[in-house]
Amino acid sequence: MATNESKTMNNVLVGRKNLCILAYDQGFEHGPTEFDEKNVDPEYILNIAREGGFDAVILHEGVAARYWQKDRDVPLVIKLNGKTAFRAGEEPFSPQLCTVAKAHTLGASAVGYTIYVGSGREAEMMREFSKIEDEAHDLGMAVIAWMYPRGASVAGRENEKEVIAYAARLGLEMNADFVKIPSAKTYEDMQWIVKAAGRTGVLVQGGKQRDNEMFLEDMKIAMRSGASGVAVGRNVWKNADPIGLSKSLIAVVRNEHV
Amino acid sequence: MATNESKTMNNVLVGRKNLCILAYDQGFEHGPTEFDEKNVDPEYILNIAREGGFDAVILHEGVAARYWQKDRDVPLVIKLNGKTAFRAGEEPFSPQLCTVAKAHTLGASAVGYTIYVGSGREAEMMREFSKIEDEAHDLGMAVIAWMYPRGASVAGRENEKEVIAYAARLGLEMNADFVKIPSAKTYEDMQWIVKAAGRTGVLVQGGKQRDNEMFLEDMKIAMRSGASGVAVGRNVWKNADPIGLSKSLIAVVRNEHV
Amino acid sequence: MATNESKTMNNVLVGRKNLCILAYDQGFEHGPTEFDEKNVDPEYILNIAREGGFDAVILHEGVAARYWQKDRDVPLVIKLNGKTAFRAGEEPFSPQLCTVAKAHTLGASAVGYTIYVGSGREAEMMREFSKIEDEAHDLGMAVIAWMYPRGASVAGRENEKEVIAYAARLGLEMNADFVKIPSAKTYEDMQWIVKAAGRTGVLVQGGKQRDNEMFLEDMKIAMRSGASGVAVGRNVWKNADPIGLSKSLIAVVRNEHV
Amino acid sequence: MATNESKTMNNVLVGRKNLCILAYDQGFEHGPTEFDEKNVDPEYILNIAREGGFDAVILHEGVAARYWQKDRDVPLVIKLNGKTAFRAGEEPFSPQLCTVAKAHTLGASAVGYTIYVGSGREAEMMREFSKIEDEAHDLGMAVIAWMYPRGASVAGRENEKEVIAYAARLGLEMNADFVKIPSAKTYEDMQWIVKAAGRTGVLVQGGKQRDNEMFLEDMKIAMRSGASGVAVGRNVWKNADPIGLSKSLIAVVRNEHV
Amino acid sequence: MATNESKTMNNVLVGRKNLCILAYDQGFEHGPTEFDEKNVDPEYILNIAREGGFDAVILHEGVAARYWQKDRDVPLVIKLNGKTAFRAGEEPFSPQLCTVAKAHTLGASAVGYTIYVGSGREAEMMREFSKIEDEAHDLGMAVIAWMYPRGASVAGRENEKEVIAYAARLGLEMNADFVKIPSAKTYEDMQWIVKAAGRTGVLVQGGKQRDNEMFLEDMKIAMRSGASGVAVGRNVWKNADPIGLSKSLIAVVRNEHV
Repeated sequence: MATNESKTMNNVLVGRKNLCILAYDQGFEHGPTEFDEKNVDPEYILNIAREGGFDAVILHEGVAARYWQKDRDVPLVIKLNGKTAFRAGEEPFSPQLCTVAKAHTLGASAVGYTIYVGSGREAEMMREFSKIEDEAHDLGMAVIAWMYPRGASVAGRENEKEVIAYAARLGLEMNADFVKIPSAKTYEDMQWIVKAAGRTGVLVQGGKQRDNEMFLEDMKIAMRSGASGVAVGRNVWKNADPIGLSKSLIAVVRNEHV
Repeated sequence: MATNESKTMNNVLVGRKNLCILAYDQGFEHGPTEFDEKNVDPEYILNIAREGGFDAVILHEGVAARYWQKDRDVPLVIKLNGKTAFRAGEEPFSPQLCTVAKAHTLGASAVGYTIYVGSGREAEMMREFSKIEDEAHDLGMAVIAWMYPRGASVAGRENEKEVIAYAARLGLEMNADFVKIPSAKTYEDMQWIVKAAGRTGVLVQGGKQRDNEMFLEDMKIAMRSGASGVAVGRNVWKNADPIGLSKSLIAVVRNEHV
Repeated sequence: MATNESKTMNNVLVGRKNLCILAYDQGFEHGPTEFDEKNVDPEYILNIAREGGFDAVILHEGVAARYWQKDRDVPLVIKLNGKTAFRAGEEPFSPQLCTVAKAHTLGASAVGYTIYVGSGREAEMMREFSKIEDEAHDLGMAVIAWMYPRGASVAGRENEKEVIAYAARLGLEMNADFVKIPSAKTYEDMQWIVKAAGRTGVLVQGGKQRDNEMFLEDMKIAMRSGASGVAVGRNVWKNADPIGLSKSLIAVVRNEHV
Repeated sequence: MATNESKTMNNVLVGRKNLCILAYDQGFEHGPTEFDEKNVDPEYILNIAREGGFDAVILHEGVAARYWQKDRDVPLVIKLNGKTAFRAGEEPFSPQLCTVAKAHTLGASAVGYTIYVGSGREAEMMREFSKIEDEAHDLGMAVIAWMYPRGASVAGRENEKEVIAYAARLGLEMNADFVKIPSAKTYEDMQWIVKAAGRTGVLVQGGKQRDNEMFLEDMKIAMRSGASGVAVGRNVWKNADPIGLSKSLIAVVRNEHV
Repeated sequence: MATNESKTMNNVLVGRKNLCILAYDQGFEHGPTEFDEKNVDPEYILNIAREGGFDAVILHEGVAARYWQKDRDVPLVIKLNGKTAFRAGEEPFSPQLCTVAKAHTLGASAVGYTIYVGSGREAEMMREFSKIEDEAHDLGMAVIAWMYPRGASVAGRENEKEVIAYAARLGLEMNADFVKIPSAKTYEDMQWIVKAAGRTGVLVQGGKQRDNEMFLEDMKIAMRSGASGVAVGRNVWKNADPIGLSKSLIAVVRNEHV
């Protein structure tokens, strides 16, 4: 057995191959323009997570602290850093805004952190991530790295096979348990990306809202190519029947994983 | 019960829905040009706070340390950061100038911190705020985030519904007990902003001095739309009859809250 | 009694209304061009301080450590930060170069720190000052803030009433025991500045060397307007009869304070 | 005996004169474009290291944590910092992404750190290296400094004798046990470089893949000129017969060292 | 007795008036281009220091750790910061690369630190020096400040009387035991510089290699003007008869000091 697996041995997420996670960090990243009267309310989301059968829900600290309940809700992933949509023109940077210790106190099973790979400030985020990774693993929490290609150096190439594969590989090199990445264009690309990530699991993001069938087909392809799961948000909680769609999605993820 | 509510359970401000707070941080933010021979003296302000029946008074560290008395004055909010009016052309930044521990020693019930949302330096302020939030909650103090849209990226949009709603939502995502924000243009806008802030209370700022009736009408609308209270300064202590106006204001706030 | 007065209750400078302090930080700030064969020697200065009857002497760490003697010399103020004259074109910044703990070990009764109010780097200095203020008060030392308007944003306005009043007020807001500021142009301006500073004492700087009578007249006006004292250097130790002038100055300060 | 030799006295690498180390940090530095279906898998590399008879293998933290096994694999060197290939146009900087303590916990015998000598950010890397050097030696680990000339100030001169000799000498001045450097152009240049490094051992890098004989000849020359060993990667694990080549290489290194 | 003299009372260098120190930090500052086959080897230098009768030798950490021996060699000064010759066009900055604690562990009697007076980054170096000064004095070590005028603000004035006198005075103000400075142009200039430094001793640097007689004459003038000693390098260890020259130099220093 390799060295650092022991501390997270009993973690509810580590080592899983068919994860379905509900993301609700858009209030920070995009602002309430994403929301309507229903999904602006975190209770609405937590209900989808429970009733839809998700394995975990992703929240920022404040929403977790004020809404999530350990004895009622699905396992918690706290997103530790965040970036507003205001500073769009700059090389992207997302500062840590919640400590690992606080996430642990709040009951989180995992922490998430975004690294904008290719950004002029990627070094700062990598450095910060490396500290988080140590602290979280020491507390038995899983570590999920949002590895998103962004910034002038990768502009227009954010969805290219080699760029995503590099982003995913960096997650392995930095000891993430999972990387959350955009979907690649083809099944073959996706297979190579999963291979590059090695023993670090790949979670495919849901992305912008689209047609139910297209969305489910994309997730199916990702799972067949070896991904360890999906982390989706808007496609589910903007849906007219979020719980119905959740159940279809989970069936896909459970059945298709390699 | 959600996780972090326990430590501030007995706090005099947390959970309140009809707060009336007197702000006197203008000596730092604007300088004595705001003052006359009477209101330049913090004793004059503390007297208004007491006699007018305010729930709390907002001071910077030095004024708190040298004037405020626990056994005599209304509960204390210490504003932890500050920015002078000299550097007007820059992307706004307001550094922390008082520790949470010092605020606690001085007897404060809450701490305040300004984040200039949209500023080129918002990441620095958010990071600093996140530490303050942890420290203050650990000591049982309430946390009030001044969420003020400022800087080139939001220039001219500081009072737009979506901009203020985003600012308010960020306060929830970062676990503030209250956000202090500018008034929106309409009652409907204000309702959406309050909804976006969720379980984080909304305190509406008073803003520039204006006619008593206009001022009270604005505060009335804010309270009806679901705000948790008001934090006002110049409209009160520049008034010829500050205690009279205070009493009218407090009546509005107490009666109109939803 | 307000909260933070207790720790400095027995401090030899705190609360004083008629202070006469001898400044000798020019070796750092201006360099030896200010000196001649006599006053280049710190012993010469310490002798003036003793024989002239000053309440305290201002030194940088090294001069204090190598010349000042507790059992022989007048009380010590250590200037904690310093800026050379070399970088004249830049927005002024003066970094801390001596810790509060070291100043305490060396026997200082007070620490001094310059904030260039209006400088592009004022936030850094304010932040550093705020830590010093806590540490010094915890050790029972007085805190003197040199509040000097400087930098492009206040160029040409360094001696204006509102600019100096703002600088002085910031000293109160940040909990300095004393602010050291330039003289204002008129008696009325000076009165407003003293009022703006509230319970923070105002020390007027001596400035460039000038005629004895003019100098003493300026100090007299400052004291009558409510200043808590003077902090002078070159006018005294560049004088042909420094001890004679010191005695005249001290008589003025003792007699004229309000 | 000189002072700091004692703590690393029993280290498996320190003091060795004929080291053959397999580098596999390219997943971070270059991305998976360097890899094919076989060598993308760290298990494939670790097998070459074992079967080929290498003295150590160089990995980043994540690959070490998830693949390397103390009781099975050759001694571990953890590369502590890393730089992606995305930011090619900038003055190069490589931030620390794994602590010395973590490397020690993972079972490493040595740590590696790259300093881009001549870079506009060399001071930052030197400072970070100096802390790492202390920590690693305190824990009995060997310290290998990748001393790579890079950046505008040395552009086009990266392989010049004096530039490499300076880089190697800096490794001695900063107390590295080994420097990893590019090959110089001639045998005589290499001799001077080894002399400049003094008691700090010189490890020659393998560089880009080339013909087996050319590669082995380069390594032979390096060893004869006094180098303490080689640290090679792509030439070996991109080779069709990596274990065969490894054995030839090791024979060269063992026989040719001075 | 002034306050901080007690801890360094028994230091082998503090208070000395006729010091002869051999500098060998050029491997870092200039690179091996300064060296030949003999003096590239630190053993050659340590032998000159011993046989030539020097009071101390200046080394960077790595050379000290790997060559210097307490029971064999002359007292050790560790140069804590360093700057390579690569970044010549920039405002000079030299980061700390060895801790005071490490220098103490290695057996050093003193630490050295360069401040480029007048540099755009002088504030950073002064701040770092001030911490080093505290730490070193606490451990009973002497503190030598290399006070070198450099950077655009003093370009062309590096050897002017007032510039060097200011640099030397800053060393006193910051509590250095010694300043190492360039020679001034005249005996009178040198006298003023020594006076400006007060109780901080002045060590004159040797500078570029020149004719034996010219070199010794320069050192003689410096000592007569009141300097506390010399710190020389290339003039000695590039000399054909370094031990002969050392003995002549030491005779000059011992005889000529005031």
